[in-house]
Amino acid sequence: MIFEHKIIKEVEFSHTDMAGIVHFSNFYKYMEAVEHDLFRSLGKSIVGERDSAGENLGWPRVQANCSFKAPLKFEDKVELHLIVRQLRSSTLRYEVIFTKLGEVSMVCARGEMTIVHVVQDQAGVMKARPLPEWLALALEAAPEGYKCK
Amino acid sequence: MIFEHKIIKEVEFSHTDMAGIVHFSNFYKYMEAVEHDLFRSLGKSIVGERDSAGENLGWPRVQANCSFKAPLKFEDKVELHLIVRQLRSSTLRYEVIFTKLGEVSMVCARGEMTIVHVVQDQAGVMKARPLPEWLALALEAAPEGYKCK
Amino acid sequence: MIFEHKIIKEVEFSHTDMAGIVHFSNFYKYMEAVEHDLFRSLGKSIVGERDSAGENLGWPRVQANCSFKAPLKFEDKVELHLIVRQLRSSTLRYEVIFTKLGEVSMVCARGEMTIVHVVQDQAGVMKARPLPEWLALALEAAPEGYKCK
Amino acid sequence: MIFEHKIIKEVEFSHTDMAGIVHFSNFYKYMEAVEHDLFRSLGKSIVGERDSAGENLGWPRVQANCSFKAPLKFEDKVELHLIVRQLRSSTLRYEVIFTKLGEVSMVCARGEMTIVHVVQDQAGVMKARPLPEWLALALEAAPEGYKCK
Repeated sequence: MIFEHKIIKEVEFSHTDMAGIVHFSNFYKYMEAVEHDLFRSLGKSIVGERDSAGENLGWPRVQANCSFKAPLKFEDKVELHLIVRQLRSSTLRYEVIFTKLGEVSMVCARGEMTIVHVVQDQAGVMKARPLPEWLALALEAAPEGYKCK
Repeated sequence: MIFEHKIIKEVEFSHTDMAGIVHFSNFYKYMEAVEHDLFRSLGKSIVGERDSAGENLGWPRVQANCSFKAPLKFEDKVELHLIVRQLRSSTLRYEVIFTKLGEVSMVCARGEMTIVHVVQDQAGVMKARPLPEWLALALEAAPEGYKCK
Repeated sequence: MIFEHKIIKEVEFSHTDMAGIVHFSNFYKYMEAVEHDLFRSLGKSIVGERDSAGENLGWPRVQANCSFKAPLKFEDKVELHLIVRQLRSSTLRYEVIFTKLGEVSMVCARGEMTIVHVVQDQAGVMKARPLPEWLALALEAAPEGYKCK
Repeated sequence: MIFEHKIIKEVEFSHTDMAGIVHFSNFYKYMEAVEHDLFRSLGKSIVGERDSAGENLGWPRVQANCSFKAPLKFEDKVELHLIVRQLRSSTLRYEVIFTKLGEVSMVCARGEMTIVHVVQDQAGVMKARPLPEWLALALEAAPEGYKCK
């Protein structure tokens, strides 16, 4: 059972805005990137799974927030540290700590995302579904107050 | 004194993702769009202001969150209703209610953003500054519990 | 029969990059936006049409280029002027002239896009299809050398 | 002297659109990504260089095109192979071959970009400048007809 996962990303030019820093909307894309990489590390993809009846399973976002402490700039390397915070019947809530790497590394943002497991019928209607068994077997919530490895 | 502002946007193809709906990161761009339009409606721009010493003034984001109730799709028209929730010495916090327009309009998301007024010196160091006088004269927080016009 | 269509867009903050100007990749999104608006002006949507057998029809891009003469900046208003250049059995090629509006308006870019009409079977395989009749009845190529109204 | 450079990227969810494939505008971002990585491989950054008078040097895009042969999808791995095609007094033109990696790899797109070396004065006016000496010493055009290593 694991409760955390890390990747490192390098800021691309197209992520920046006229203030010379990463546009804040990209922090949410970075959160999603480490989440999807966690799924891959478990041998799964966030898309393409089907239930036993052949219907599409998916993971829409329920809520996402982020607090910004310091900017990221072009060619910065940033560690994205995902920590599982809560597993409920059909939702997964995780935190992401953004650390800008360098001689002196620093936390530059903290985000949180809640996603829900759903099945989508042919008409596109979505209903919540229990977390998949493989996920419930692979992931657990981090210990209370857990911050860094 | 005003405490709210509205614009309508139409979802573009490039805002969608492979789930067939607006990628959630774009909701944060939509929030920013109505904020910037509020500034324009007051005769100002979110960028390019300078203080009396000629130094650049700006509005970095401190925190942003969004809760997603229902998806937006290509060519949907969505009303973005900004409501000023709090004015402090150097920060502005506002809510945005996303309403998908149609025969039966529905709230599809609610977001909240906190921005801070800063001055940036030539070395790029940012310091908080009081809200500009023109803004303090033009904006006020909405009455407690205010939801819709 | 028409051979041109125009819309005006206002540059948003999230379209800019650290060079202080619209990131060049957004010019391609702007081209697509006026194309999709042309379809809407004809009562159609670029997505969601089906053939008589119920299979999905679509319009993938075959080729797109753009030449950049002058930058666009935040809050600039830009006219996107689409001119139909060629209609072939299953492809449509158009030019887009980007004019920055102001006291002295100026052409800041010119782009060209070729799109193809396809049907996509349930396995996702795409085959070229003749242009739809409604489009062939509504659009024609601009006269040779046509530039501006 | 080198005339080519390669990187591999993995398609992220936020690069896709409602057609289930990478939005075509992202192919231009991918081209830029391999270009910037080429600069880094030479110990340089595409941004932040200054001339002897301390003025900013930059590399605006002059022209960019791309032909699309086959789609890219979420989690595809794509090789971006940059080939220098022409060096002139102040411009650099390169091709990018997009190869989707897999059991059977396939070329899915080909693009071409021309960039120009400029100096920007304090008023923001840009003037073409000769290619920097370090670049002229490090890069050469590929032999006529060169395609793959």
